[in-house]
Amino acid sequence: MAEKVIPRSEDYSGWYNDIVQKAQLADYAPVRGCMVIMPYGYALWENIQAGLDRRFKATGHKNAYFPLFIPMSFLQKEAEHVEGFAPELAVVTVGGGETLEEPLVVRPTSETIIGHMYAQWIRSYRDLPVLINLWNNVVRWEQRTRLFLRTLEFLWQEGHTAHATEQEAEDETERMLNVYADFAENDAAIPVIKGRKSESEKFAGARHSYSIEAMMGDRRALQAGTSHNLGQNFARAFNIQYLDRDNTLKHCWTTSWGMSTRMIGAVVMVHGDDQGLQLPPKLAPTQAVIVPIWKSDEERAKVLEAIARLRTMLAPIARLEIDDREGITPGFKFNEWEMKGVPLRVEVGPRDVANQQVVLARRDIAGKPGKSTAAWAELPHLVPELLKEIQVNMLAKARRFLDENTYHTGSDYEELKRIIDGPGGFVWAWWCGDAACEAKVKEDTKATIRNIPFDQPGGTGKCLVCGEDSLQQVVFAKAY
Amino acid sequence: MAEKVIPRSEDYSGWYNDIVQKAQLADYAPVRGCMVIMPYGYALWENIQAGLDRRFKATGHKNAYFPLFIPMSFLQKEAEHVEGFAPELAVVTVGGGETLEEPLVVRPTSETIIGHMYAQWIRSYRDLPVLINLWNNVVRWEQRTRLFLRTLEFLWQEGHTAHATEQEAEDETERMLNVYADFAENDAAIPVIKGRKSESEKFAGARHSYSIEAMMGDRRALQAGTSHNLGQNFARAFNIQYLDRDNTLKHCWTTSWGMSTRMIGAVVMVHGDDQGLQLPPKLAPTQAVIVPIWKSDEERAKVLEAIARLRTMLAPIARLEIDDREGITPGFKFNEWEMKGVPLRVEVGPRDVANQQVVLARRDIAGKPGKSTAAWAELPHLVPELLKEIQVNMLAKARRFLDENTYHTGSDYEELKRIIDGPGGFVWAWWCGDAACEAKVKEDTKATIRNIPFDQPGGTGKCLVCGEDSLQQVVFAKAY
Repeated sequence: MAEKVIPRSEDYSGWYNDIVQKAQLADYAPVRGCMVIMPYGYALWENIQAGLDRRFKATGHKNAYFPLFIPMSFLQKEAEHVEGFAPELAVVTVGGGETLEEPLVVRPTSETIIGHMYAQWIRSYRDLPVLINLWNNVVRWEQRTRLFLRTLEFLWQEGHTAHATEQEAEDETERMLNVYADFAENDAAIPVIKGRKSESEKFAGARHSYSIEAMMGDRRALQAGTSHNLGQNFARAFNIQYLDRDNTLKHCWTTSWGMSTRMIGAVVMVHGDDQGLQLPPKLAPTQAVIVPIWKSDEERAKVLEAIARLRTMLAPIARLEIDDREGITPGFKFNEWEMKGVPLRVEVGPRDVANQQVVLARRDIAGKPGKSTAAWAELPHLVPELLKEIQVNMLAKARRFLDENTYHTGSDYEELKRIIDGPGGFVWAWWCGDAACEAKVKEDTKATIRNIPFDQPGGTGKCLVCGEDSLQQVVFAKAY
Repeated sequence: MAEKVIPRSEDYSGWYNDIVQKAQLADYAPVRGCMVIMPYGYALWENIQAGLDRRFKATGHKNAYFPLFIPMSFLQKEAEHVEGFAPELAVVTVGGGETLEEPLVVRPTSETIIGHMYAQWIRSYRDLPVLINLWNNVVRWEQRTRLFLRTLEFLWQEGHTAHATEQEAEDETERMLNVYADFAENDAAIPVIKGRKSESEKFAGARHSYSIEAMMGDRRALQAGTSHNLGQNFARAFNIQYLDRDNTLKHCWTTSWGMSTRMIGAVVMVHGDDQGLQLPPKLAPTQAVIVPIWKSDEERAKVLEAIARLRTMLAPIARLEIDDREGITPGFKFNEWEMKGVPLRVEVGPRDVANQQVVLARRDIAGKPGKSTAAWAELPHLVPELLKEIQVNMLAKARRFLDENTYHTGSDYEELKRIIDGPGGFVWAWWCGDAACEAKVKEDTKATIRNIPFDQPGGTGKCLVCGEDSLQQVVFAKAY
């Protein structure tokens, strides 16, 4: 496990796969396109879940569970929805040894079954809003798969809300996009661009889709979370109605929003390097690892005794591992914990014990500059401080990378092509809003409109393709 | 929602379904035999998960995730396993619009895919034990279904471990049965009988199965958790081998163990009454509810001001709700929170405000005897005390009910028949171990051997059916 990974600069995709497996995040399952999330990867997912779940509950949402199987006929009730998802469905045709009368779809997402149930639960304006989130697994029959980034089955959360007014639904859609952005930046240390998806990139069945877009280490974009204003599309398809104060029956306005195990792929690609993973302290299953160093049995006894004391001191303030395995060199252990991306390493050798100190090594700053010595007495104060510093530094580094690889080409299409074909990155440019112009860029460069950022430079300009007046800039990039 | 439920004594099964829906634990899904777990039911499940997950981690287990889909051929590798599960499978035959070459089974349990992966992960004795737990959904194509008790799809955890020796696997199997029993008694306030399943009742593919059996309010048994010693059956079928210290290749010994959303059904049936649910404080989503009482606007202002102070005082020490809905009478609210089984109600009226006191009403003691007044200053101390007392009292009541409906008939078969046909209950009797005697009792009475309790009365006796010498007593009961 402490072997080297394929260098990132040589083969980004090989490097990614290598890290995911060598850091023991996931393994390939025997079914094409499926993965096994290994304990270390799942512990990371549990921390992602906790960070999101806390935010969902703080914004008034409750968790529930809806069935895995959806009658095929449900999907057909919303025309765009079924068109978008039909090619990706896994279908159960046999149950209990018999052919089913109506095939059951393994949920690719739950809007339709949610619509069916909400139509029964919602009667009056007093029942609104309904604010529910689900943690579950979904299946989409993808052709080209990558561990975490695109798998047939993945874990995620999907929020589904119903509201009395258009405005409330729009507010909810934006609120949850902000929750995702807050989580991405503050917990995952990944800066994101918030914006609206173009019509051609929106969710099948949505009125508007919003996304947060992050830049990976190869300068490609990854859509890390989406929030959809479904308008009344699903409310009409499933007859989700409420009796309003004015005693008339009205259709609800609904939303849905999701973030998935894909986020783990983003964490790997944004922070990882040739030494392996690099985990932000807030998400790291292990925040600090203590590695003992000794040569003689006498030294061993002293070092382990000191470590027992350090454990008592540090276990309550950091997620801590003690690596006291025998028969493995400290150097090997260092490499292994670097591969696993543990933010802080605490080295304790005989000289450290004599001086009542430790050596601290930061994962986010390589080599000597990341090393320091600290007295035992300082640690209860210093370790949380350092973890905070690492968290902040990781976000700052990622933001610097994003900034350095962001270009503003305005209306200069040739410049955009040069950048996308060359170094790669995020390119801001004017766009008239016409799908034909969008399609041309995609055809010419493989870059897509990631989103129409909320945070606009202002003013107007000429569309980079057709030269028409444009009110908005968009971000183009190649994407995962 | 505050309507009455069908009386328990009149129609136990109608009462159960009524409570599950009126307390908003679950609803019927549009697919036969599937359920929607509603937010209140899911919050209960989250507390069950937390209680179990904490215990799993304290015993050294880590969570992971394995795929939903299992190749059909995997199930066929263990003969007993496929025989047991084949009739209950849901099968995906179409993916991405094409017929699959090999059909995929929606997991009914994960032993086979676990076996496949463990065979790749385990190389040497240093890799053992492997102690992994999964939280997921499984599907079994049941013909007769009941909300929570038996559904096509259910949520559960399944632990899967691999060990170097037979003894270690047996120890693990018992350890996890003890974890379940500890959780059932201390968190769910449900006393259980721990024991071994008979050969005919064991898990398909196991060497030995153990269970905890609980008595429901209609005196039937419910298997609330199972732990299986799988011997080397799956290790041989999937070639899970390790290189031992003596440099020879050996098969591992594996276990599996599970507890499911069925536990919610048990909580309903053990503790519920004609007023609705009754939740043990450790699992209750809401442990205490404050209900304001007022007539005039002036009273309303005073009461709500007092409640704001009480909220600050109590929110940090109990999962708290404030029911300040307008236009609903306090009596209606009382009924509704009783239906939802909230352990403690805190009533605050104008007179209470004047006296700086509240009225406390316990859900576990009906009417006046469960009511008391308490000064505000006492509450931070009193509320946790009362919740503890309610937890203890609920377990004691359930234990009393179990004891009162437990019979020891020794070898008297007629007496057993009379009890099973009449009042019902758990009947301890001698059994020789012969499957034919077991089958005869089942045929005559519909009662099955729930388990062979660890806690034996000692001595020997004559089998209740054939009269042969028997070394063990078993517990007979009709079961869910």
